[in-house]
Order: sequence, then structure tokens, then C-alpha cells
Amino acid sequence: MQRDKELIIQKYGGSSVANLERIRKVAERVISYKKKGFDLVVVVSALGDTTDKFIELAYKITSKPKEREMDMLISTGEQASCALLAMAIHNLDYEAISFTGGQVGIITDSTHTKARILKVDADRIREELKRGKIAIVAGFQGISRKKDITTLGRGGSDLTAVALSYTLGAKLCEIYTDVEGVYTTDPRIEPKARKLKIITYDEMLEMASLGAQVMQARSIELAKKFNVPIYVRSSFSEEEGTMITNQTKKLEEVVVTGITLNKDEAKVTIRDVPDKPGIAAKIFGKVSKEGINVDMIVQNVSKTKMTDLSFTIKKSDLSKTIKIVKDTAGEIKAGEVISDEDVARVSIVGVGMRSHPGIAAKMFKALAEKRINIEMISTSEISISCVIRKKLGEEAVRVIHAKFGLAKARI
Amino acid sequence: MQRDKELIIQKYGGSSVANLERIRKVAERVISYKKKGFDLVVVVSALGDTTDKFIELAYKITSKPKEREMDMLISTGEQASCALLAMAIHNLDYEAISFTGGQVGIITDSTHTKARILKVDADRIREELKRGKIAIVAGFQGISRKKDITTLGRGGSDLTAVALSYTLGAKLCEIYTDVEGVYTTDPRIEPKARKLKIITYDEMLEMASLGAQVMQARSIELAKKFNVPIYVRSSFSEEEGTMITNQTKKLEEVVVTGITLNKDEAKVTIRDVPDKPGIAAKIFGKVSKEGINVDMIVQNVSKTKMTDLSFTIKKSDLSKTIKIVKDTAGEIKAGEVISDEDVARVSIVGVGMRSHPGIAAKMFKALAEKRINIEMISTSEISISCVIRKKLGEEAVRVIHAKFGLAKARI
Repeated sequence: MQRDKELIIQKYGGSSVANLERIRKVAERVISYKKKGFDLVVVVSALGDTTDKFIELAYKITSKPKEREMDMLISTGEQASCALLAMAIHNLDYEAISFTGGQVGIITDSTHTKARILKVDADRIREELKRGKIAIVAGFQGISRKKDITTLGRGGSDLTAVALSYTLGAKLCEIYTDVEGVYTTDPRIEPKARKLKIITYDEMLEMASLGAQVMQARSIELAKKFNVPIYVRSSFSEEEGTMITNQTKKLEEVVVTGITLNKDEAKVTIRDVPDKPGIAAKIFGKVSKEGINVDMIVQNVSKTKMTDLSFTIKKSDLSKTIKIVKDTAGEIKAGEVISDEDVARVSIVGVGMRSHPGIAAKMFKALAEKRINIEMISTSEISISCVIRKKLGEEAVRVIHAKFGLAKARI
Repeated sequence: MQRDKELIIQKYGGSSVANLERIRKVAERVISYKKKGFDLVVVVSALGDTTDKFIELAYKITSKPKEREMDMLISTGEQASCALLAMAIHNLDYEAISFTGGQVGIITDSTHTKARILKVDADRIREELKRGKIAIVAGFQGISRKKDITTLGRGGSDLTAVALSYTLGAKLCEIYTDVEGVYTTDPRIEPKARKLKIITYDEMLEMASLGAQVMQARSIELAKKFNVPIYVRSSFSEEEGTMITNQTKKLEEVVVTGITLNKDEAKVTIRDVPDKPGIAAKIFGKVSKEGINVDMIVQNVSKTKMTDLSFTIKKSDLSKTIKIVKDTAGEIKAGEVISDEDVARVSIVGVGMRSHPGIAAKMFKALAEKRINIEMISTSEISISCVIRKKLGEEAVRVIHAKFGLAKARI
């Protein structure tokens, strides 16, 4: 799209607009970009913990709130915050206009509480930008073809920002949050963790799905699909953040970008599974039918026509999973079913890892040096994950971080 | 409109849905009507003092919030409450669906914070009623042709209820509030005040504009225009309320329906006004240009080519009015300008008053018997008003109430 001025999309999360003082700060920051000559579309989340409070209220009324009504209720949070931000900008004598998801034409399917965006009819927003106004958009929400209000699920405001960036041809999509960017690993675990200047979509996807809570995988996938450059930074400082793009590193660079730790999984082991075709399909077919995502799966080579099968799932799915697996184990005449919640998964992430020999060995060596036992291993195109004892998780992150020299400055 | 089932519109004010317990009670009442076989559309206001809190928040951000943004903000209150009521009905296993003003097709002009309804496209609501659902509608709000969210001003939820009653051909429009109905006078002033079973639109309009705070004049005007029968009652009891219709009383009935007291006005007197044509036009032209509503105007017959001119206005308009009037008094070479805030207006209201001789005399006599001096008198088709000393207001109401025998049962 041809533009007179370059357009920047900014998204401010709930903590960035948690109170009036912070809303004023956001208004000042937005205006500072306007002064530099950019057109601006600002996506906001609900104030602080408003959404959680609404959800709590709904559950006080009924144990099973209908999702359509839940969307009607919680979408008011973003609607209120975008009106308040527009007022704060007006108060500093700049022109701004707020919009609901419906008003900016974010058309979704009817899957309430986790709707998918079908298209964006951004005519109204284009018109107001042309008039020189700063457009403020309620994040996290859209409207179905029937004109019902929908919400986009966790991380929905990021999704709004990315979708508008693509539709309006933005130069950049800035995601303001309460962290300063993406780090080589969680700085609370390894204080020497270094903020990354740049990370690829694929790496960020691995980091997001493996537990780094900067952005939801869904928004990154959308950004990757439409090649929307994303800049993650803090709304509480002027520090530089992290750019997420499709730019790949050169071969001679360090291949390991970051390390993640996930303590939210549980391990399930089925002993003495008959080593016959179709058995795994039977077990995991039943599990997935219940909407349970299985993460790692490891099956040892069997010597005896019997094998042990282990897999990991989210801890919150454990009791449901155990029930299904025990039933199935009975049917297929397998042995004992054992669950273990005292596990952690530590992963290294980096594009080009597969083509660099020795990366996995280096990781295993780091763990071995600290006598950390590896219980499961799984690898992908850009990551290597090990399941270990939970209490050793933080130590594992630190030794691997040191082994790969991630604290050192990167060129 | 032809209907399978008779339709009832119910409107619940903010105090009726102030907390979860009350929302549950409203849900039970709504369902009790559904069980009786009625179709139901329920209009709700925002929970308790939500709207006031939003307005306060806006004024903390800016001293002059733009009205469009104010509507965006405060309309979220009703949107949240209608979702919560729908959930409470679902919890009792009945089908309900909530709508914003925009979703039910309440199309307004663009006069934000006090928009006028242009039309109601009620197709969606008809469709859901046909499916047997209870429709819950966010009161007080609409949508402009540009799809901006608008609000209808004070008493806007009543207006929503009346407009939907007309559009959908409702049998009855019930307004649930925190009083049990319309009384002969304010029961806090005269404990013997009697609840009226029936009152005409015109009488109710006088009562509303003269200070009885049951319903805003605007909603009653609309109900009168389209002959929508309104039933005012309490959401906190099962007591019978007051019906507002076009039904007129028979000639032999008592003509005085009610008595109102208004202590919110101030009196302005201009001394020694030259008794020439065009002088009054000049004074009141300038006052009305400032958006100030003048209520009563009294000018004595002059003997000396000079006259005293008195009028009443809202107390909140007094300082602005004094400024205008002093300037004008100088121009027209009139004398002193005196303001008096220690006044009250007591009024009797009743259809057919004009054709009943002696009503005014009876009122004046009641006041005289208690030595209450009348400072100004004004009459209309269905009311007679007297300005008196403020501290005598309550006593005046009581003596007139007794004089006309309003405490006695009416046939």
C-alpha cells in the first residue's frame, strides 16, 4: 500500500495501561512518534487485571458462562481503555479517535473466546489516519458476520496489532510489554542472560512455545506469514528492545540463540507396551481426541517385543490423561502407567542448529559435567530439548548458558 | 405487529442490578414472566454507580473529555451488565442472549452523550425472540450511521425500553426502579402520600419536569407519542405500581393528581424595567442564547412606565444568568438586579384542572391558612405553580395535600 507518511503500529499490554499515570505515559510516548512524523495506530489491552476480574465475576454468577456472553462482557475492558487513552492524548492537544474491534472491521469467525480473524476491513481507520488522527484500537476483539462481539483468546491484542500492521502496510509493529525484549534465557534464572537485538520468527516461535512469555505463538505465526517486522520493547523505559524478523544469521555466527525452561509439564510412562503396529496410534489418538496436546514422545527400541513409552503433556491435563491412558493400557494389555510431575524441560533454540555438528553433544556434555541426568531427549529443526529432574532445571539453564557463551557480546 | 405470544418489555435501572444478588433476583423475575407464557425483552442499565465512576475516571484524565470518547467509555457499563444478566438467566436453565444498542439496531444521530433515536432495526431481536430466547438489551445506547457508539443521555435506558416497546409492538413496558410507583407527592415530605394506580402521560410529564424523579420527561413524551402503556414498579417488591397511559379521568373525579416541590430553582428580579415593547424579548433572547432554560416569568402591570420583572431558572445557571442580565439591564437602563436562592416552587398537577373552577383558589387558600406568602404564580393547562420561601416548601406540600384530600382512597 502506498502511504504519504510511514505508519507505525504500537501495542500496549495491560500492565502498560494499568493506571491513569501509565495511560498518560503511553499518551506521551505515542505523541513523541507523531511528532517525528509517523502515522500511528495504537492497539491497547484492558487496564491491568480488568479481564481477570470480569472472568471472576462471570464465574460467580454461573459455573458455565456461555462463551458468547463472556466475549460480550470481557470485550468492554479494551473498549474502555482505548477511550481513556484517546482522552489522554486529547488532553495533550493531539487528535485521536478510539475504535472497537468491530468498528475497525476486524471480522472473525464465530468461535467465541478464541475467534480467528477472517479479514480486516480497515476503511474507517484509513480515513481517520488520512485526517491526521492517531487511531486507538481496542485489542483482543473482533466482530462476527452476525455482528456478535468475539474475542481472540490469549495474546489477542498482539494478534490485533499484527493483523492491522499487515492490512495497513505498517513499517513496523511495536509490542510494548513489561519486559525489555527477548533474552538468551530468563534473567531471573541466569542474571547474565543477554538481551537479543534480533531473533527470527522461527526461533521466537520455539522460544514462545517453549515457555518464554513475551508473545503468543499465534501472533508470531501471523507475523511470519505476512512478514510483519515486530519490535518487542518495554513501555517503562527507553531501552532498545528485540526485533523479530525473517532475517537469518550468517553461518559463522553462534547458532544457539536462547535457552528455555519449562516446568509446567508432566511425564507419563506406560510400561511393557506390546511392540506392535498401531499401538501408539491408538494411545495418542484417544488422548488427542480429548483436546490434550502431547509434547515430547519417546519410545525405546525394544528387545523383547515389549517397550516402555514415555511422553509429556501439560500438568493441567495430567489427571484426564492418566484416566484415558489407563483404560487404553488395559485394552492393549500393557503394564503399569506411571506419572511424574517432578520434571522440567530445558531446551536450546537456534536457526541452523541441524547443520552445525556437535551442538547436541555440547549441551549433553554441559549437563553431564554437573551430573544432571537426562531422562528424555527430543530434537527439531531448530531446537534440542531434554527432560531432567525439576529441581535441577535452573542449574541446567545456567550451565548450558555458560557452555555456549551466550553471556558474551554478539557481533 | 402480529405476534404469536404477547411481548413484555422490562427495564431495570442501575440500583436493580447493583450487585450479583440483585442480578440473580432480576433473572428470577424475568423467568417468572417467561413461565407465564410471555415473550420478553429486558433492558438493563449499568451496574449501580458504574457510569458515575467512569465519568469520574474520564475527568481525572482530562478536564474536557470529548463526547464521542465519553460514549465509547460509559457504554461499556450497560454492555457488561446485559452480559451478566444473560449469564444469570442461563444459570437458571433458560435461554437468553444479550445485545448492545448497536446490535439491536438502535440507530441514532451523532449528538454524542445525548443522541436522539432515528430508528430501530429490530430484525435480529425478532429472530431471537422467535427462537424462544429472552433478549437482554444494553440500555442507554445506540449507534450512529457511521457506526460510532452513542449514548442517549439521562434516563436513556427508559428511552430504549419505550422505543423497543413501540417497534416490537409490546403489550406493556415495565419500568423497574427503586420506588414502588408514582405518588400523590414525595412520601418523604408527606408520609400520607398515596401511590397512584394510574396517571396520564400529560400529568406524568408535569410531575417529571416539576421534580418527581421517577422517569425522565423524554421517555414519557415518546411513550405518549406512540401510546406505549408504561407500568412503573419496584424491583425490590411484588407491590403493584403505577400505570402511565392516555386514559383520562372522568369529570367527576378529583382533578388534582399530585403535588410536586422543586427547591432547585433560583429567582431573579430586575427592578425598574422600562415598560416598552421589545424589552422582555431582549432579556430572554440573550439568556436563552446561552442555553439557559427560563421556567416561570412574572411581570406586574406597570403604573409608572417602569415595572419589576421576575423569573426563575435552575440554580446551577444562576451566576451565568446574573452576568447576562446585569449587562442587559445596563443597556436598557433598568434598575437593580436581585437574585434569590431561598425559594421553592410548589405545584399541583391534574388533567382537566382548567375546566374546574376554584382549584387555584383552593390552593391559595391552603397556603394562606398557614400564612405562607406566595411570591410568584404561574399556570398551565394541567398545573398551577407558586413560588414561596424555601424553608416553607415541605409545609406547603402537606397543607395542599390535605386540602385536596389526596390521602383518601380514590375510586
